[in-house]
Amino acid sequence: MKAIKSFVDGEEVTGYYLLKLAEVKQTNATPPKAYFDLILADSSGEISAKLWDISSTDRETFFSMMLVKVHGVVQLYRDRLQLKIARIRKVTPEDDCSIKDFIRTAPVEAETLVAAIAGAASSIQDKELRSIVDFCIAKAGDKLLDYPAAKGMHHAYYGGLAYHTSRMLEIGEFIAGQRPFLNADLLKAGIILHDIAKTEELTAELGVVKEYSLTGRLLGHISIAASWITEAAITLGLNTGAENVVALQHLVLSHHNLGEWGSPVQPQLPEAVALHHIDQLDAKLQAVEDALFSMNDTDEWSAPVRVLENKPIYRMRNIGS
Amino acid sequence: MKAIKSFVDGEEVTGYYLLKLAEVKQTNATPPKAYFDLILADSSGEISAKLWDISSTDRETFFSMMLVKVHGVVQLYRDRLQLKIARIRKVTPEDDCSIKDFIRTAPVEAETLVAAIAGAASSIQDKELRSIVDFCIAKAGDKLLDYPAAKGMHHAYYGGLAYHTSRMLEIGEFIAGQRPFLNADLLKAGIILHDIAKTEELTAELGVVKEYSLTGRLLGHISIAASWITEAAITLGLNTGAENVVALQHLVLSHHNLGEWGSPVQPQLPEAVALHHIDQLDAKLQAVEDALFSMNDTDEWSAPVRVLENKPIYRMRNIGS
Amino acid sequence: MKAIKSFVDGEEVTGYYLLKLAEVKQTNATPPKAYFDLILADSSGEISAKLWDISSTDRETFFSMMLVKVHGVVQLYRDRLQLKIARIRKVTPEDDCSIKDFIRTAPVEAETLVAAIAGAASSIQDKELRSIVDFCIAKAGDKLLDYPAAKGMHHAYYGGLAYHTSRMLEIGEFIAGQRPFLNADLLKAGIILHDIAKTEELTAELGVVKEYSLTGRLLGHISIAASWITEAAITLGLNTGAENVVALQHLVLSHHNLGEWGSPVQPQLPEAVALHHIDQLDAKLQAVEDALFSMNDTDEWSAPVRVLENKPIYRMRNIGS
Amino acid sequence: MKAIKSFVDGEEVTGYYLLKLAEVKQTNATPPKAYFDLILADSSGEISAKLWDISSTDRETFFSMMLVKVHGVVQLYRDRLQLKIARIRKVTPEDDCSIKDFIRTAPVEAETLVAAIAGAASSIQDKELRSIVDFCIAKAGDKLLDYPAAKGMHHAYYGGLAYHTSRMLEIGEFIAGQRPFLNADLLKAGIILHDIAKTEELTAELGVVKEYSLTGRLLGHISIAASWITEAAITLGLNTGAENVVALQHLVLSHHNLGEWGSPVQPQLPEAVALHHIDQLDAKLQAVEDALFSMNDTDEWSAPVRVLENKPIYRMRNIGS
Amino acid sequence: MKAIKSFVDGEEVTGYYLLKLAEVKQTNATPPKAYFDLILADSSGEISAKLWDISSTDRETFFSMMLVKVHGVVQLYRDRLQLKIARIRKVTPEDDCSIKDFIRTAPVEAETLVAAIAGAASSIQDKELRSIVDFCIAKAGDKLLDYPAAKGMHHAYYGGLAYHTSRMLEIGEFIAGQRPFLNADLLKAGIILHDIAKTEELTAELGVVKEYSLTGRLLGHISIAASWITEAAITLGLNTGAENVVALQHLVLSHHNLGEWGSPVQPQLPEAVALHHIDQLDAKLQAVEDALFSMNDTDEWSAPVRVLENKPIYRMRNIGS
Amino acid sequence: MKAIKSFVDGEEVTGYYLLKLAEVKQTNATPPKAYFDLILADSSGEISAKLWDISSTDRETFFSMMLVKVHGVVQLYRDRLQLKIARIRKVTPEDDCSIKDFIRTAPVEAETLVAAIAGAASSIQDKELRSIVDFCIAKAGDKLLDYPAAKGMHHAYYGGLAYHTSRMLEIGEFIAGQRPFLNADLLKAGIILHDIAKTEELTAELGVVKEYSLTGRLLGHISIAASWITEAAITLGLNTGAENVVALQHLVLSHHNLGEWGSPVQPQLPEAVALHHIDQLDAKLQAVEDALFSMNDTDEWSAPVRVLENKPIYRMRNIGS
Repeated sequence: MKAIKSFVDGEEVTGYYLLKLAEVKQTNATPPKAYFDLILADSSGEISAKLWDISSTDRETFFSMMLVKVHGVVQLYRDRLQLKIARIRKVTPEDDCSIKDFIRTAPVEAETLVAAIAGAASSIQDKELRSIVDFCIAKAGDKLLDYPAAKGMHHAYYGGLAYHTSRMLEIGEFIAGQRPFLNADLLKAGIILHDIAKTEELTAELGVVKEYSLTGRLLGHISIAASWITEAAITLGLNTGAENVVALQHLVLSHHNLGEWGSPVQPQLPEAVALHHIDQLDAKLQAVEDALFSMNDTDEWSAPVRVLENKPIYRMRNIGS
Repeated sequence: MKAIKSFVDGEEVTGYYLLKLAEVKQTNATPPKAYFDLILADSSGEISAKLWDISSTDRETFFSMMLVKVHGVVQLYRDRLQLKIARIRKVTPEDDCSIKDFIRTAPVEAETLVAAIAGAASSIQDKELRSIVDFCIAKAGDKLLDYPAAKGMHHAYYGGLAYHTSRMLEIGEFIAGQRPFLNADLLKAGIILHDIAKTEELTAELGVVKEYSLTGRLLGHISIAASWITEAAITLGLNTGAENVVALQHLVLSHHNLGEWGSPVQPQLPEAVALHHIDQLDAKLQAVEDALFSMNDTDEWSAPVRVLENKPIYRMRNIGS
Repeated sequence: MKAIKSFVDGEEVTGYYLLKLAEVKQTNATPPKAYFDLILADSSGEISAKLWDISSTDRETFFSMMLVKVHGVVQLYRDRLQLKIARIRKVTPEDDCSIKDFIRTAPVEAETLVAAIAGAASSIQDKELRSIVDFCIAKAGDKLLDYPAAKGMHHAYYGGLAYHTSRMLEIGEFIAGQRPFLNADLLKAGIILHDIAKTEELTAELGVVKEYSLTGRLLGHISIAASWITEAAITLGLNTGAENVVALQHLVLSHHNLGEWGSPVQPQLPEAVALHHIDQLDAKLQAVEDALFSMNDTDEWSAPVRVLENKPIYRMRNIGS
Repeated sequence: MKAIKSFVDGEEVTGYYLLKLAEVKQTNATPPKAYFDLILADSSGEISAKLWDISSTDRETFFSMMLVKVHGVVQLYRDRLQLKIARIRKVTPEDDCSIKDFIRTAPVEAETLVAAIAGAASSIQDKELRSIVDFCIAKAGDKLLDYPAAKGMHHAYYGGLAYHTSRMLEIGEFIAGQRPFLNADLLKAGIILHDIAKTEELTAELGVVKEYSLTGRLLGHISIAASWITEAAITLGLNTGAENVVALQHLVLSHHNLGEWGSPVQPQLPEAVALHHIDQLDAKLQAVEDALFSMNDTDEWSAPVRVLENKPIYRMRNIGS
Repeated sequence: MKAIKSFVDGEEVTGYYLLKLAEVKQTNATPPKAYFDLILADSSGEISAKLWDISSTDRETFFSMMLVKVHGVVQLYRDRLQLKIARIRKVTPEDDCSIKDFIRTAPVEAETLVAAIAGAASSIQDKELRSIVDFCIAKAGDKLLDYPAAKGMHHAYYGGLAYHTSRMLEIGEFIAGQRPFLNADLLKAGIILHDIAKTEELTAELGVVKEYSLTGRLLGHISIAASWITEAAITLGLNTGAENVVALQHLVLSHHNLGEWGSPVQPQLPEAVALHHIDQLDAKLQAVEDALFSMNDTDEWSAPVRVLENKPIYRMRNIGS
Repeated sequence: MKAIKSFVDGEEVTGYYLLKLAEVKQTNATPPKAYFDLILADSSGEISAKLWDISSTDRETFFSMMLVKVHGVVQLYRDRLQLKIARIRKVTPEDDCSIKDFIRTAPVEAETLVAAIAGAASSIQDKELRSIVDFCIAKAGDKLLDYPAAKGMHHAYYGGLAYHTSRMLEIGEFIAGQRPFLNADLLKAGIILHDIAKTEELTAELGVVKEYSLTGRLLGHISIAASWITEAAITLGLNTGAENVVALQHLVLSHHNLGEWGSPVQPQLPEAVALHHIDQLDAKLQAVEDALFSMNDTDEWSAPVRVLENKPIYRMRNIGS
C-alpha cells in the first residue's frame, strides 16, 4: 500500500487510510450539491480528498477518526495534491487494520515515555514534591499516554505530551549538571507538571485535539495545573504555603515567561528561568522537526511556522558531507 | 494642633504626629554625619522632616509607625515644604493619642464596610458560591478590616480594600439592574473575591503596605485567590470542576483583562466583562480622588498619576457654580 | 409569521422580511450566472438568502433596505442556515407592513431616549455649557432618533446612539453621587456630546450604517465634535478659550483615553477619567448583550467579539437558580 | 568678552551673560545654606554656575531671563564645566547690552522668516484656503516672530517656529516640483498651519518655552489648530464642511501620522503624506544640528538625542576633504 | 487598440497585451474543469481575465510574461472589471510588438536614470568612497537598468530602483544645500548603495519581482549590501576598519531606522539620519503615486495602501483651480 | 587578607585590592573639595570606597585597573557597605601580587576554554566552514582568552566570552544528539562565531569592558561578524554566495531572533533556531548565576536582573535536603 507522502500527480491508488476529518460541504453550483471534504491520513502524512455526489447513506456512514478503504486518483489542485475518490468503504474486522498504525506518533513508544517520566518522578528526593508530582501523574492518568502537547503548534501527535516532557527531562538533567546551583528536584517536578494540565484543558482523541474543554477555555492549563498542586497539597495534608509547594506553583505559573504569553507571574527562581528556556528550546526545535516532516521530498522551503515568527524553514542539501 | 496640610513656610509648629517612616542617613559632609530622614503624617497628609546630629540613643528610640511629639520650623526645600525638627520625643500614655487618629482611612468606618461585604455575601442565592465566598472572607479574617487595596496605585490606606470592594458592590448592583442578563450572584461573588488575596500577597500595617510577601511575589494575588477557591471547594466537599466554581475562578483570573496586566485568561463570561470594567471605573476614580487629596490648596495640577497614563490631574475652580 | 431566529433546517417559510442587503453576484459556473446574494432581517435577527437565476427585471426590482414577501426553504450551508428563495415580491400598501417592525431597535422608544437626553441637557446648571449642549443636540437633529452608536462594534441598531447616551447618563448620575468631587454638569455635557458627531461621521439609514462620510474619514467623530463646540461657542458669542469650553472639548477629545485608540490628548480632568470608563463599561456590556442576542438557542459560545479582545462569550445555564 | 563655548577649566572670566535660569537651592550642610544654582547663557551656548552664600538681597535681585555682569572661575565638576561666581551685578543701561544678543536665534532674521511665510501664504491660489491661512497668521500675531518650534526636541530657540516653517516651505516647493500630483496650495497651507497653534499651546519668552498653557495641556496644538480653522471659516463666512476646509483640517490633524504620536486620524490625502514626511525630515535634521551645536570642540559624540531613538550623534572629522 | 484603463463594462475588445500572470486553476464544478486565470497588462494598467475550458495544448502554449493577442468581452464581476476571453493566440514576429511597450516603466528612461546615478557617483570627492560605489554599481550591472525597487510596496516597475535612487539623489542634493553640516559625499554614496543589493535579494524580470533569492531570504538586502562594501574594500585594497568605510556601512545598515523595520543599528551619523528620512519621503510619495495610478477615473478612493498605515488615498477634484 | 564579600560593618581592614574604578569627584561643601570615589575589587566581589581630602599628588598616583594596598574602616552608607580609606599606596614588586588574582574570572582556565573551542573548530567536517571558523578565531586572537561576553548583562568577566562559547558547544553537542536533523558542523560554526566580533565591538581590559569601539557602535557585533565571514571567504578564495557560507552568515545574523533585539533577519534554518535558543538558555542561566554571585550571604533576593524581565531572583534554602 502506498504511503501518502509518496503520492504523485495522476496516479491511481488503493489502500487503507484514516479518515482524519470528514465534513459535508456544498458546491457552488445551482442548486448546490452535497459532497464530502475529507482529510485522509497515514503515519507518513495527510492529503485532502473529495467524494462528490454523496447520498444520505454516505452522510450517515462516514465520520471523522474512522478507518476506510479507498480507491481514487491523485490530482493537482491549486498547487497541492488531493485525492478524487471513486470508491470508499468502512474497514471491517476482516481488513485487520489498527488505527494506531495510521496516526503520527512520537518516535518513542508511549509506554516507554511514561515510564521515563514516572522514573524521573520517583527520583525526586524531596518527599513532598515527589508526592505532589505522583498525585498529578495519577490525576492525568491514561491521557498521559496519548495526549499531544498542543493543538497545532508543536508535538501535535499521539504521545506528544509525554515525548516533550521526556525530552525536557533529559535536557534538564544535562543542564543541572552544568549548573550546580539548580535544584534538580524542583526542576524535574516543574518539567513534569508544566504542561500536564493540557490533559484537562484539551479534549483529544488518538493524539489529535478536537477542541478546548470549557474549563480549558475559562481557566487555561497553567492555572489548572496550579489548582492541581493546591488540590494535591490539601489531599496529602501538606501546607499549601510551604516554600517548596509555592516554588513548584511558581514554576508552573511562570513557565510562559511573560504576561502576554499567558504567565501571570515572571520567573524569579533559578529553576523557573531554566524551565522556561528548556521548554522553549525543545518546543521550537520540535516545531522545526514538524515542519520538516510535513515537507514533500521536492520542497526546499516548509510552510510558514507560526511559533517561529511565522517564518518558513529552509532545508539545505549539501553541507557537511 | 495644626494639620500638616495647612503648614506654611517659615512657621513654628508643635504637635503630635505619626512617624510614618524613620531612616538613618548620612550627610555628604567630610566625614559624613548621621541624621534622621523622616516622614511625619497625620490624617490630612504627610511632610518630610529632618532631625540633624542624632545620637546613638536617638537611633534606638525612634522607629517607623510610632507616635511622636515634635517641635520644629517649616522650611521650603527644593520647592517642597519640610520640617526641621528642633525637639522630638516619644508619645507617652499621658498624651492620650491613638494611632488611628493619625492615619488616612477610608471615608466610611471599616466595620461598616466589612458588614456591607458580609451582607452582600449572605444575599448570594447560589448556595455553593455563597459558601465559597464565606470561606474566603473567613480566611482573610481581620485583614479585611484594615488592608489597603494596593501598595501605592489607589486606595492605599486603612480599610482601602474593604472600601474598594464595597463601592464596587454598589456599582455592580446598579449595573445588574440595567443589564438583566448578568447573573447577580456570580458578579457579587467575583467582586468580593477579586482582590481578597491581597491580604496574603501583601504585608501591611495600619493600612500601609510594608512589602510583598514571598508567596505574593512568586504567585501574585490573582493566582492565590484562584487557589483559595480550590481550597474552599475541596474543604467544603464541592466539585472543583463544577460550572459555578470554574466560573468564579474565571472571574478572578480574568479581572485584569489582558495578559500584560497579569490575567492568564481573558474575560469570556458576561460577568467577567462587567467585573473588569467596574473595577477599572472605581480604581481609576479613586486614583483621581487620591491625587486631589494629595494636592495643596494652592496647586492647580496634581503630581503625575501612574495609573492614569502618568498624567497629572487639573482641578478646575469656576465651573457650574 | 415565523421569526427568523426560530427557523429550522428543512422547513418551508412564507412571510414578510426586510431585504437588508441585496447584492448581485455571479456563480463560478461556466459561463457564470447572475444571482442575488441577500440578507433578510426581522427584529429577531438575520439570515443569508439566495435567489438563483435572476432576470434583468429582478435586478431592477430589488434593492437593499426594502420590504419583501418571500417563500422559500431553510437549508444548512457550511454550518449556517440560509434561505433558498422560491418566490419573492415587493411589499405593497395592501400588505400593511411598516419597516420599523423589521429592524432591531433599542429596547426603549427612540423618542423616550431623546427626551431623556434633552432632559439631562436642560438640567445642566452652567448656562454656557447648557447652551453649547443644546446647540449640538439641535445640530444633530433627527439623526439622534435613529442613528446607531457604531458601524458594528456595539449598539449597531436603530436608536443605538441615543440608547448608549441615555444609559451612560444614568451611570454618570449614579457615579457622581458616589464621588462628590465630580462636576455633574461637565460630566453630563461630556456624555451627551462624546459620540454625537457620529451623526456627521457616518451615513446611516434606519439605524444601519451605510458608510463613513468623507468628513468622517478625514476628520473622525472626535475632532468633528470638538469643531462643533468651537462653532457653538462662536455662534453663541462665548469665549472659545474659557475654562468650561476648553474643559468640555477636553472631555470629548480624550474620551478614547489613548492615542492609539484615537484620542489626541489623554484625560486630565476628573470628569474626563469618569467619562472614559463609563463609556467603556456601557459599550463593552452592550457588546456582550449584542453577542448574546446573535446566538441561537442551542449555542453555548457566541462568535468572537472584536471589542472584547476578540474572545467569544460563553452563556451559562445553571447558576444561581 | 569670552564666548561661553570657549571657556576652559581653571580660567577666570569677566563678562555680560544672560541669566537664563535662577533657582535658590540649599546645600546639604548642617544646617543647609541657601545658594543660587544658575544657568548663564550667551549665543554660543550655556554653562551651569553657582553663587554661594547668598543674602536675602541677592534673592530679591536676581531672576531668570535677566542680563548680568559676572566675574568668576571656570571649574570642572563631575565631568562638566561650571562657573564659580565671585561677583555678580545686574546690567544697567550704561552697559549698553541687548538681551537679543545673548540668546540663540534662528540663523536667519525672524523678520525675514515671517516675510517668507507671508509671501508663501499670499501665493496660494485658492482664495478660501488663502484667507484661512491669513486669518491664522494674524491670530498668531507677533508670536510667530519669536516662538520656538518646541519645548526641547528641536528648533528650541528664538524664531525656531518660523525657521522650521520656512525651511519646510522650501522643501515643499521642491517636492511639489518633483511630484505634479501634489496640490501646491494645500501643501503650502498645511505647512504654514501645522505647528502654528504652538503659539497658543506654549508660553514662551524670547524663544524659550516656560511652560504649557492650560489650553495647550488639555487640547494640544493639533486640536487647537483645527479649532482655529473652524473659527476662521465661520468668521470668514465659509462652509466648514467644504472639501478644501476639511482637507486643510485633515492635514493639520494627521501630520503626526499615528495615533500614538498624537494624530487622531492618519494621512489619507497625498498632501498629508507629504506634509508628515517633510516635517519629519526637517525636524530630525534640525535635531542633529542642535546636537552638533551643543557639542564642545573636543567631543566626538553628542549627548543622546531623544527624538533620534535616544541615540547620540557621532561627528566625523576626516571624510571627503 | 484600447488601453486597459479605459475598458468599460460590456464592450468587446481586441488587442495585444502582456500576459503578466498565467495560472491554471480548476472550477468548483463537479467534476472540476481546468481554466486559465490570467492577468493581462499594458502600460496603462492591468485587468483580470479568464479563459474557460482550456485544452492541454493551451496549457503548453501560454505562460507568464509573454505577449498575446486576445479578443473578448469586458464584464463586471464582484465590483471589478474582468475580461472573458473568446480568442487568444501568441504574438508572432509579424505582429511587430515589443514587450517593453506593455509594461509599466519609470517615467524617465532607464538609461538616463543610470547615467544620472553614475554621474552622481563620479562627483564623489572622497576617492575611497567613490571607488567603493563604482565597484558596487559594476557588481549590480545591468540589473540596475530594469529592477524594481520592491516586490509590491512602491516603485514596483521597470527601472523603479534606478528611479527611486535618482530622485533621492536630487532630494539629497537639495537638503545638503540647506544643511552644510551634511557630508555630501557620504550622503550620495549612501543613497546609491542603500537599496542596490535588491538586485541580489530579488529575482526580477522586466521590472516584475518573481521571488526572493535564497541569499535574499537568508541575509536580506541590507546585510548583502554591507557585505558588498566589505568585498569592495578588500578587493580594492582598502582598510575595512577605516572611518569612511565604516561610515558608509553604517548608512546602509541603519537606513531602515529601527530594528523592527530591519536595521540592526540605528542612525548615529548626520547623513544616516538624512538618508532614512529622504528614503521615507520618496518611498511614501511614490506609494501615493502608485495608488493614484491604479485608480480608475471614477474612483474617489484608492485601495488601502499597506505602507501608508494601510489607509486608502482620497483624490480631490476641486481645490485650487 | 579578608575577602571583600565577607566584610562587615564597623571592622577595620588592611589588604591588597584591585582599584577597579578611580574617579575624582567633588563634595557638595562650600567650597567643594576633591575626593576619590573608588571601586575596590577582589575575586570575591566589589565594594565602593572613598578617599577624602586628596592632594594633587594623589590625583596623579591612582588610576583605574591598578593594584593598591589599603587600610580603612567598613561603614554602612545608605544600606550598602563602603570602605572609608585611611591609608592607600600603590603595590610594588616586593608585594608580589598578580592582578589576575583580583578579578573575577570564568570558573575554568581561559587556556582550557580556548583549547576546547579550537578543538570543536577542528572537528568540523565541512572544510570550507572549518577554514572560515579558523580564520575568525585567528582574527580574534588573544582577545578570545580574556574578553567578557558582554558589558554587563551576563558573563561580564575575564574569559566570559570563551566560557559562554564553550558551554554552548557542550549544549549544542547534546542537542544535536537528540535531534539528528541538525547539521552539527553548521551549529558548531555558528556557536563559535555568534559573539566572536564582540572582540571588535568592545574595548575591554582584564575582562572588564571599558567602552564600545567606534566600529562597534556604528555596526554592532552581529554585522561585524558577518563582515568577517565575507572577509574570510574572499581571503580563502571561497565563493561568498555558496550555500554553506550564506548559511553561516544567516546563523550569525539571526541569532538575536527578532529585529527589535538586533537581528536583521529571523531564523530560517533549523540550526539557526537551535543557536538562538541555546544562546538564550546559557545566557539567562549565567545571568542567574551572576545575580546569585553578587548576593551577600544574608540576602534572600538579588537585585533586579535586567535581562530577566528586570526581576530579582529569590534564593531558596530548604528544598530537597
